[in-house]
Amino acid sequence: MSELESTAGPVRVLVWGENRHEQLQPEVAKIYPEGMHNTIRQGIEENLGHKAKVTTATLDDPEHGLTEEVLSATDVLVWWGHAAHAEVADEVVERVHAHVLAGMGLLVLHSGHWSKIFGKLMGTSCTLRWRSERDREIVWTVDPTHPIAQGVPHPFIIPEQEMYGEFFDIPAPDELVFLSSFSGGEVFRSGCTFKRGFGKIFFFSPGDQDYPVYHHKDVRRVIANGVEWARTERPERTSPVLLRYETEDFYNGHGYKGAMQN
Amino acid sequence: MSELESTAGPVRVLVWGENRHEQLQPEVAKIYPEGMHNTIRQGIEENLGHKAKVTTATLDDPEHGLTEEVLSATDVLVWWGHAAHAEVADEVVERVHAHVLAGMGLLVLHSGHWSKIFGKLMGTSCTLRWRSERDREIVWTVDPTHPIAQGVPHPFIIPEQEMYGEFFDIPAPDELVFLSSFSGGEVFRSGCTFKRGFGKIFFFSPGDQDYPVYHHKDVRRVIANGVEWARTERPERTSPVLLRYETEDFYNGHGYKGAMQN
Amino acid sequence: MSELESTAGPVRVLVWGENRHEQLQPEVAKIYPEGMHNTIRQGIEENLGHKAKVTTATLDDPEHGLTEEVLSATDVLVWWGHAAHAEVADEVVERVHAHVLAGMGLLVLHSGHWSKIFGKLMGTSCTLRWRSERDREIVWTVDPTHPIAQGVPHPFIIPEQEMYGEFFDIPAPDELVFLSSFSGGEVFRSGCTFKRGFGKIFFFSPGDQDYPVYHHKDVRRVIANGVEWARTERPERTSPVLLRYETEDFYNGHGYKGAMQN
Amino acid sequence: MSELESTAGPVRVLVWGENRHEQLQPEVAKIYPEGMHNTIRQGIEENLGHKAKVTTATLDDPEHGLTEEVLSATDVLVWWGHAAHAEVADEVVERVHAHVLAGMGLLVLHSGHWSKIFGKLMGTSCTLRWRSERDREIVWTVDPTHPIAQGVPHPFIIPEQEMYGEFFDIPAPDELVFLSSFSGGEVFRSGCTFKRGFGKIFFFSPGDQDYPVYHHKDVRRVIANGVEWARTERPERTSPVLLRYETEDFYNGHGYKGAMQN
Repeated sequence: MSELESTAGPVRVLVWGENRHEQLQPEVAKIYPEGMHNTIRQGIEENLGHKAKVTTATLDDPEHGLTEEVLSATDVLVWWGHAAHAEVADEVVERVHAHVLAGMGLLVLHSGHWSKIFGKLMGTSCTLRWRSERDREIVWTVDPTHPIAQGVPHPFIIPEQEMYGEFFDIPAPDELVFLSSFSGGEVFRSGCTFKRGFGKIFFFSPGDQDYPVYHHKDVRRVIANGVEWARTERPERTSPVLLRYETEDFYNGHGYKGAMQN
Repeated sequence: MSELESTAGPVRVLVWGENRHEQLQPEVAKIYPEGMHNTIRQGIEENLGHKAKVTTATLDDPEHGLTEEVLSATDVLVWWGHAAHAEVADEVVERVHAHVLAGMGLLVLHSGHWSKIFGKLMGTSCTLRWRSERDREIVWTVDPTHPIAQGVPHPFIIPEQEMYGEFFDIPAPDELVFLSSFSGGEVFRSGCTFKRGFGKIFFFSPGDQDYPVYHHKDVRRVIANGVEWARTERPERTSPVLLRYETEDFYNGHGYKGAMQN
Repeated sequence: MSELESTAGPVRVLVWGENRHEQLQPEVAKIYPEGMHNTIRQGIEENLGHKAKVTTATLDDPEHGLTEEVLSATDVLVWWGHAAHAEVADEVVERVHAHVLAGMGLLVLHSGHWSKIFGKLMGTSCTLRWRSERDREIVWTVDPTHPIAQGVPHPFIIPEQEMYGEFFDIPAPDELVFLSSFSGGEVFRSGCTFKRGFGKIFFFSPGDQDYPVYHHKDVRRVIANGVEWARTERPERTSPVLLRYETEDFYNGHGYKGAMQN
Repeated sequence: MSELESTAGPVRVLVWGENRHEQLQPEVAKIYPEGMHNTIRQGIEENLGHKAKVTTATLDDPEHGLTEEVLSATDVLVWWGHAAHAEVADEVVERVHAHVLAGMGLLVLHSGHWSKIFGKLMGTSCTLRWRSERDREIVWTVDPTHPIAQGVPHPFIIPEQEMYGEFFDIPAPDELVFLSSFSGGEVFRSGCTFKRGFGKIFFFSPGDQDYPVYHHKDVRRVIANGVEWARTERPERTSPVLLRYETEDFYNGHGYKGAMQN
């Protein structure tokens, strides 16, 4: 009797933070004294315990802390950026993109909607409407059996938060997990999943440098759920390929030697 | 530090088989001497081991073996029927339907496409084209990160099988996991997931009384994967409800007392 | 040179109204003196002009005005009901269901979410949360290229309306066109499309007997857009069928003579 | 009484062809003596007549014939490329991408699956399996009410064609219209729709330089249907934007002055 193997060991999570607001704005540093990436990391550890091994990296690390070696050892990358999207090197974006298509999970948080990596994966402008005026955000579950929605009340309430509103220019998500309303009357598709290549992506909009959202119990739980969900189900990390297959040979594709390589 | 609780204990699976062909047709009994339901059960046990507790029930059991008590103790119901769909009591179909909406998982296999319960959950005719002439079926994965697709080759091949072809009158599935081709040239959406209410449904078309498909290693693995996937993520079994909520009271809905109850 | 034929002639629309509140409640009759069905009819005529031929029927007509003859001459049925869902005869529901699967378009408005026909097509409980306390409803477009969303502002605002909120127990819609927020903070998937069989279905939640919503310019435009969208693209009205096809004969299916007919 | 305006005038179609095989390979020139782009153009004209105004452009035109002026006057762009994807200037790809997000329709044909523009819009590798060995391709409709599927038999058969097979690395399409099987046993999602920004995209795989597929009556009809479908429903061509909105001012967004512009 053989049993289904499950993906072995704790999920290896890398929380990437831009880490600029915390350095430049005392009011942000007050909310996130160890940096937003560390607060996010703690929220994941708090919920996943020994089931996760969480590290961090920031924009100002060499290669933004996102070397080939680091990414190869990462199951799920969590991305927070805002003021310095343009400073992320294109070469690193290409590298992260290749890893996502090959099976690395990706969580994109809040203002990461306008990061290079999210735009590259979505193919759209990822624009939206916004206002930072201490709106109350109410987060509603519309996919109650989804693993990402477990363990949080329906709805959960964020007392003060930046407003993100529709139209949000993304592809129709594979799964719509959460919808948010704001006290000003706007709505937003605040929890969306996508698959791209062999990678799983979760976009979750709550979270901002000006509000203590990453200290919010339910937000932390959702991010931890998202990390568990985004780990790929495939045992190996390989890229989708273009191969020629002989008739009746379904398994041994031959490397393409066509015009694209020239 | 608190950790995410996972759904505790082995998944409780009930394999329901019509069990008529095996009684009436010696050629079927030869392929499935213990009944198709037992062959399906063994395939799940072989793959899930101690992670599942599998029992069986058949059409000719009292209430078809699908009492309120039995369903309440079932996490995932696996359904195979063909010649006697019409003999399944409407009352039992209502009961199974209510349990699916409240969170019981459901796997519908092959000719179960035309069962009362599948039609009731889909809302469509569930018709298709067919031919039982020993076509070769090739099953291709189109959602390679899906948990149901793990552990089987891409593609996997069923040497002889009944042909099921498009147009298959179902709602567009939430996820399309497998596509099949047949040696006669037909195609079929052979692995489809749906969510209805709080329940998860997986339709998987390979399998027939006239071919030894439920002895096929990869088919057995997919069914076992489907069982694991279909277990609901919600901790309790409750039904969706229609309730009135006061302004600013998001959590204490009041029982509806409207026209529908009269 | 041949050109693509378009579906000829005006769309034949039947607006079905329960027509009970208007008879029993003076405050409703004041808002809808000719009955809600006639107000809805006028909104469609106002927008579609000679492109539509609109008639009405009500619950108290013989066979609810939904005879085989009437349905056969209807391209799109618009459904409003609320207090008397249970009085709609099952036989008529079966008839409407068969016509939808065979290609008749269907618009389900507001409290029609709990009609027998909508539940039968969805396969779910179609429950939701609600409150009739003069909330402001704001309707946001999340699919801006959809034909149903053309010609209305983003967002459009309904000053006073019944609140419908999530979780709304429906299958994930094929297309999510509108999201609504309410002044109490709730959100709702207020414009959803579904295909079932050969029929197209549009659910649109704004509209209630206690508020003058069907006099609202933008609501009228959306309903008219929905009518145009829901007309089937297929030239004939036929039902999906289950047929056997010989190998290499892709076009001449043979009538099924199996167990279901016995 | 006002009536719904329809998008005025004939659809302005631009067929873009790489036009290299036809110049370099006599066997291709024999099948497509006027160039593949002209055969595709003729197929659209044959089906749409006065409802379309079709022009062509090729890789070796200045700016590949895809200037800002040309794209601004194009409702739907049809793209065929194969051997020289890499020669398409990145600047032109950016321009086409911006027009698609702003509302220009796009049809991507066959080997265009690996074009820069399709990859940029999808965000994935768009790889697949292939073999050019005169397989018979059978194209099955799985969305029978879709406008793109009207007027062609179910199935339609292409006697000889290059095989394209799964896994095709694309995002799950918004709508799956066609599935193909090949005589070698492979399957392919051969007709897929996507929305990106305000633009509509149809990918259709039949068609190759080595086979006379663009002379095939049903293939021509599908492409013409696709052209009609891909025309945007929005009256103007504008890009999605990121704007700040004051509380209670839903309509007058203010230009973003944030970090991204620095």
